[in-house]
Amino acid sequence: MKNSRINGVLAPVVTPFRADYSPDAERFVRHCQWLLAQGCAGLAVFGTNSEANSMSVEEKADLLDALVAAGVPAAKLMPGTGACALSDSIALTRKAVALGCGGVLMLPPFYYKGVSDEGLYRNFAEVIERVGDARLQLYLYHIPPVSAVPITLGLIERLLKAYPQAVAGAKDSSGDWSNTQAMIEAFGPSGFDVFPGSEVFLLQGLRAGGKGCITATGNVNPAAIDNVYRNWRAKDADALQAGITATRKIVQSVPMIPALKATIAHYADDAEWQRLRPPLVELTAAEKKTLIDGLEADGFKMPGIESVACPVH
Amino acid sequence: MKNSRINGVLAPVVTPFRADYSPDAERFVRHCQWLLAQGCAGLAVFGTNSEANSMSVEEKADLLDALVAAGVPAAKLMPGTGACALSDSIALTRKAVALGCGGVLMLPPFYYKGVSDEGLYRNFAEVIERVGDARLQLYLYHIPPVSAVPITLGLIERLLKAYPQAVAGAKDSSGDWSNTQAMIEAFGPSGFDVFPGSEVFLLQGLRAGGKGCITATGNVNPAAIDNVYRNWRAKDADALQAGITATRKIVQSVPMIPALKATIAHYADDAEWQRLRPPLVELTAAEKKTLIDGLEADGFKMPGIESVACPVH
Repeated sequence: MKNSRINGVLAPVVTPFRADYSPDAERFVRHCQWLLAQGCAGLAVFGTNSEANSMSVEEKADLLDALVAAGVPAAKLMPGTGACALSDSIALTRKAVALGCGGVLMLPPFYYKGVSDEGLYRNFAEVIERVGDARLQLYLYHIPPVSAVPITLGLIERLLKAYPQAVAGAKDSSGDWSNTQAMIEAFGPSGFDVFPGSEVFLLQGLRAGGKGCITATGNVNPAAIDNVYRNWRAKDADALQAGITATRKIVQSVPMIPALKATIAHYADDAEWQRLRPPLVELTAAEKKTLIDGLEADGFKMPGIESVACPVH
Repeated sequence: MKNSRINGVLAPVVTPFRADYSPDAERFVRHCQWLLAQGCAGLAVFGTNSEANSMSVEEKADLLDALVAAGVPAAKLMPGTGACALSDSIALTRKAVALGCGGVLMLPPFYYKGVSDEGLYRNFAEVIERVGDARLQLYLYHIPPVSAVPITLGLIERLLKAYPQAVAGAKDSSGDWSNTQAMIEAFGPSGFDVFPGSEVFLLQGLRAGGKGCITATGNVNPAAIDNVYRNWRAKDADALQAGITATRKIVQSVPMIPALKATIAHYADDAEWQRLRPPLVELTAAEKKTLIDGLEADGFKMPGIESVACPVH
């Protein structure tokens, strides 16, 4: 599997919701198509930025079906399939593998805090064994600021040793470069693909042996981020990196997930995109103004984004 | 509904799992029957101590069906129905209300941290509106040490104002007596029933106007805890409280959830009870020895607990 793995820029795709909070498959498919057209190497649907844990397994399975039915290549999909419930993680991972997804990005069970590496090992091992499919490419999702349950280097080592074919890599959203570097140094040589969880670390990651990035702002600025990925050995790579880092800073000056949706809503002229499922809420008018003014001053564009707008059903 | 509400001691019932980690409905029903026979006023199935978030909605719905089919009165059930996914919370709450459960104990969505009270309000309001059944008695579950998402007094006030019939009370597992006291003082007079999350606060809670307790150790020491509830105005109430507090300290000298299961396994002579679903793990041999030696030295008994043992299927 290693030669066909997803490398490059992945967007953790935001999920549009209708007025009744049901997932809006039509807008979702259109956004995924736009992201691939803009250069995303893959789609990390059902990530933190996707409000994935605010949806049921069935709602996520239905969205995966909708993507594949619309012709989105399953090989480019890396859905988040890790849940608190072992049975939910197994069910959604099975579904993803059966559809031919290029990988799955798996959170640890995150309700209990301070759990042991032994318990986390058993969780991931049980999912791998129960799915029991040689096509499974599992990426571990380390995001301690949100999950509060870290994926330690010791846990990765143990999982890689037991399941060298299935354990494919990690997304490191710790925001701690020294941890990302340690992951790459320890496991990169064994074919473990590390993706920083922000484009701020894209160039640094590629130079260290990382394989791209999986980043929130990939939802709105994919072409520029992909441009850094494609030109990381170029003379102006640092200047290109500075550009995407500056855009990131504008977006994250307000709460990230509603900011991504507000940006799409604004540039696609489709207010439906602003909605979030509880417990998240949309930006205030003042936050939205800060965001859009900042982006406009930066010369920000989203070419072709009008394709993600739909009539209200 | 207020006159028929559950008051007294509730156990957050531990969930037995088979060797393949599937929920063991037979042992679960037997344990629930033992708890009611020992004086529990209600069964807070699917709580933190139940490993509820390690199970899918369907697994929990099946266990509820098994309890009702076995003749456990639904009016004594207060299942945990709060999940990260709004759709999961609605589905399980609907199921509980349809079965006639006396209440539901609802966690806030707990993946995102630092969410606003507005977002949490929308979550609970949406569940209440979608369930749309006058029988719903919703208890808010405040357990910041685990969920990391607190239920503030301001949120309770707003929910009580909007849904005075549905919002019935809270379990306060903060371990912070001043918060429990503030909840009782602010909302008790409006018919909001507060249950401390540990029997350590049982007597103090009853004297302040609380309605009982929902406590982990209710799984193993229900009769003695119920005895404090029934005799809280007696002269020897403080001595009775000291007794149950001492037993609690022995149990929580090792990790709580595996300790409860190890205690049942030991006194029922049924090793099957020791199993936990990942990410939790069973006690080490040393921890188990500390626990059982401590209980034995305390003269601890579980009369009739052999009824929860079953053949291995």
